[in-house]
Amino acid sequence: MDIATRVYNHKWKIDPIVRSLIDTDFYKLLMCQSVFRNRRDTQVTFSLINRSTHIPLADLIDEGELREQLDHIRSLSLSRGESTWLRGNTFYGKRQMFRSDFMEWFENLRLPPYHLERKGNQYELTFEGTWPEVMLWEIPALAVLMELRSRAVLNRMDRFELQVLYARAMTKLWEKVERLRGLEDLNIADFGTRRRHSFLWQDWCVQALGEGLGDAFTGTSNCKIAMHREMEAIGTNAHELPMVYAALAESDAELARAPYEVLSDWHDEHEGNLRIMLPDTYGTEGFLKHAPDWLAGWTGIRVDSGDPAKGAEFAIDWWQARGEDPREKRVIFSDGLEVDKIIALHRQFSGRVKVSFGWGTLLTNDFRGLVPNDALAPFSLVCKAVTANGRPTVKLSDNPEKAMGPEDEIARYKRVFDVGEQERIKVTV
Amino acid sequence: MDIATRVYNHKWKIDPIVRSLIDTDFYKLLMCQSVFRNRRDTQVTFSLINRSTHIPLADLIDEGELREQLDHIRSLSLSRGESTWLRGNTFYGKRQMFRSDFMEWFENLRLPPYHLERKGNQYELTFEGTWPEVMLWEIPALAVLMELRSRAVLNRMDRFELQVLYARAMTKLWEKVERLRGLEDLNIADFGTRRRHSFLWQDWCVQALGEGLGDAFTGTSNCKIAMHREMEAIGTNAHELPMVYAALAESDAELARAPYEVLSDWHDEHEGNLRIMLPDTYGTEGFLKHAPDWLAGWTGIRVDSGDPAKGAEFAIDWWQARGEDPREKRVIFSDGLEVDKIIALHRQFSGRVKVSFGWGTLLTNDFRGLVPNDALAPFSLVCKAVTANGRPTVKLSDNPEKAMGPEDEIARYKRVFDVGEQERIKVTV
Repeated sequence: MDIATRVYNHKWKIDPIVRSLIDTDFYKLLMCQSVFRNRRDTQVTFSLINRSTHIPLADLIDEGELREQLDHIRSLSLSRGESTWLRGNTFYGKRQMFRSDFMEWFENLRLPPYHLERKGNQYELTFEGTWPEVMLWEIPALAVLMELRSRAVLNRMDRFELQVLYARAMTKLWEKVERLRGLEDLNIADFGTRRRHSFLWQDWCVQALGEGLGDAFTGTSNCKIAMHREMEAIGTNAHELPMVYAALAESDAELARAPYEVLSDWHDEHEGNLRIMLPDTYGTEGFLKHAPDWLAGWTGIRVDSGDPAKGAEFAIDWWQARGEDPREKRVIFSDGLEVDKIIALHRQFSGRVKVSFGWGTLLTNDFRGLVPNDALAPFSLVCKAVTANGRPTVKLSDNPEKAMGPEDEIARYKRVFDVGEQERIKVTV
Repeated sequence: MDIATRVYNHKWKIDPIVRSLIDTDFYKLLMCQSVFRNRRDTQVTFSLINRSTHIPLADLIDEGELREQLDHIRSLSLSRGESTWLRGNTFYGKRQMFRSDFMEWFENLRLPPYHLERKGNQYELTFEGTWPEVMLWEIPALAVLMELRSRAVLNRMDRFELQVLYARAMTKLWEKVERLRGLEDLNIADFGTRRRHSFLWQDWCVQALGEGLGDAFTGTSNCKIAMHREMEAIGTNAHELPMVYAALAESDAELARAPYEVLSDWHDEHEGNLRIMLPDTYGTEGFLKHAPDWLAGWTGIRVDSGDPAKGAEFAIDWWQARGEDPREKRVIFSDGLEVDKIIALHRQFSGRVKVSFGWGTLLTNDFRGLVPNDALAPFSLVCKAVTANGRPTVKLSDNPEKAMGPEDEIARYKRVFDVGEQERIKVTV
């Protein structure tokens, strides 16, 4: 036994969930650099939203413990090794993806204050400040809430029940790996940081996929794990860019242009595999119909809401109509994936486009059926930009269940973006 | 990291499988003391017998490694703490079960030489010398061979396959625990040392049963684990006693008396829960029919071959015929147990007698179905007394598949013990 290590461990007041500023999604850092360059001074509010209202977070999680975890995150700063990795690493084949001015800013960053209040059996948790700072709260805040909820359930279990629980979870994951092994030209990455069961479990899942799937496993969105396990960090961009750009628009005409402006800024900064558009923020159909031709030249598309097969078929038709060969294009599926769905989508689209999967919650948090009352089943927790320079943001997506924003603004956006009837699909994770 | 420990570990030339002379079955020590008192100078030969000839042990296990493990066992002696535990512990409610003269002998014991030779794809492994010394080879020799075979298969697997393998094995065991939990007044102990998958796995299984079954788990036959985990050490006596006593008989009349002489010696030494007879060495039916009345007063019976339900029914009839109340008697089932069989026997006999289970190979070595070609499935390896003072030993048991000895001697024993037709039951473990 190493006495010194044991004694050192005693000095921790808490067992911190997030222990590094790069224990976050890679695309957050890519977007942060873009925002830092283009919209540095925008004031935003991010807010936690528990779409699964049947999970009484404030009853499950002690407010004091939650504050301790969030306070711990505010004490973090980029370590020298982390900075070296970000500066020196090759991402998507490109060196020095992060510019020096951004890195200097990031090295000096501490996350801004948070506002936490109990409302009934839920928490109201918001972050206010400049966009580049506040946006970095999203992933760690979600990871902390998810893991504190896991701990609340695990605390009631004794040592052997825990061992057996993880034995079963490992077995469950490995059965998925074995089913996926059969797929030719599979291309799958871990997107499960935000709603993971726990950090250690995500780390295990990533290693298991690496070991079990070999080259078919392309990497993880989690920078900390990518660094530690010497894997590729994966990701491009998310809804918050068009949402904030749209909220800042001064007219309906500017609003209609906003999603393309986001990608125009992105186009200036990135090439190749980072040129992946996310078209569903205000409806995929309208987005593609009105898209400028240079967007058809992009590398691919991420399908993140609605019926994924419909979305991909729509994109294929659109590329063909714009004179592009879909077989050269990449389609990344990333919404609520599970093995059956992955296999079905792979079967339908493999060979017709380059297919990738960004596997999230049901990779890193599939404890369904493993404890009584399914108390560890994952649920739908998000943390979103809700205002930008005082104005509300809006998200429509291809599923009205995922729509966000004030009703009148939703109506206006639907009009501006020409969104008709949408299929309603139940959101579980 | 504790550098000193790491460096110390480097000094091991091998990873020893058996690291203690009390990593053995408790009944071996009870029997050893009895033999030490009554038949100390008997010269015996013990020999390894692989009943599962389809397992090519000599192809799987390197002879050099096997020799290293056996040599390591010869270097072991009783540690001070182990001696203190044996001297100071209460076994079956009795203090000082082990007499001082025996403990002094045991403290100075080193195991005698072994003879190892490759014969085709099997090993011939024999031990010769005085009975109290040689008999202590049985359990460690079996454990070494079983674990070297496990290692031979595990060596081909990589780190994650191993993790998943053990996750599955844990899940499998825990499902058994959950099925057994429902049984009222269950009484079950670990008898799985000799054919365990590995020491660490047995240790885990024992802990899992302790945690999962609570008081229904009565302990382990393994002294090392019982000491370390502060559990009961369980066991009474085995076939080797009547086998050697019988081989030493000078006439058919002496031979017919031999099995009762064993128990007469045992009667003098032990009381209560240690007075459990093992009647099947030369056929349960004849043994009970000709048994002296004082044996009907014993605490119970162990059923270790043949159809277990038939054996128990036969014992119940016998007790009733001798004026004993079967509800006061204990029946210990210990032959090839698996959960279905345990549940069925428990259902049939609970309430009619006191039922106990000694769960062996399929507790500590059930890796069936977990690797390709079932390469980790347990098999039937034994190590038996084959000669005593130069004469061959014989075992008949209630299943001719388990019979041992020269043909003419088997015929003679069948005649002397009045053994008729026996049901043939396939032996897997």
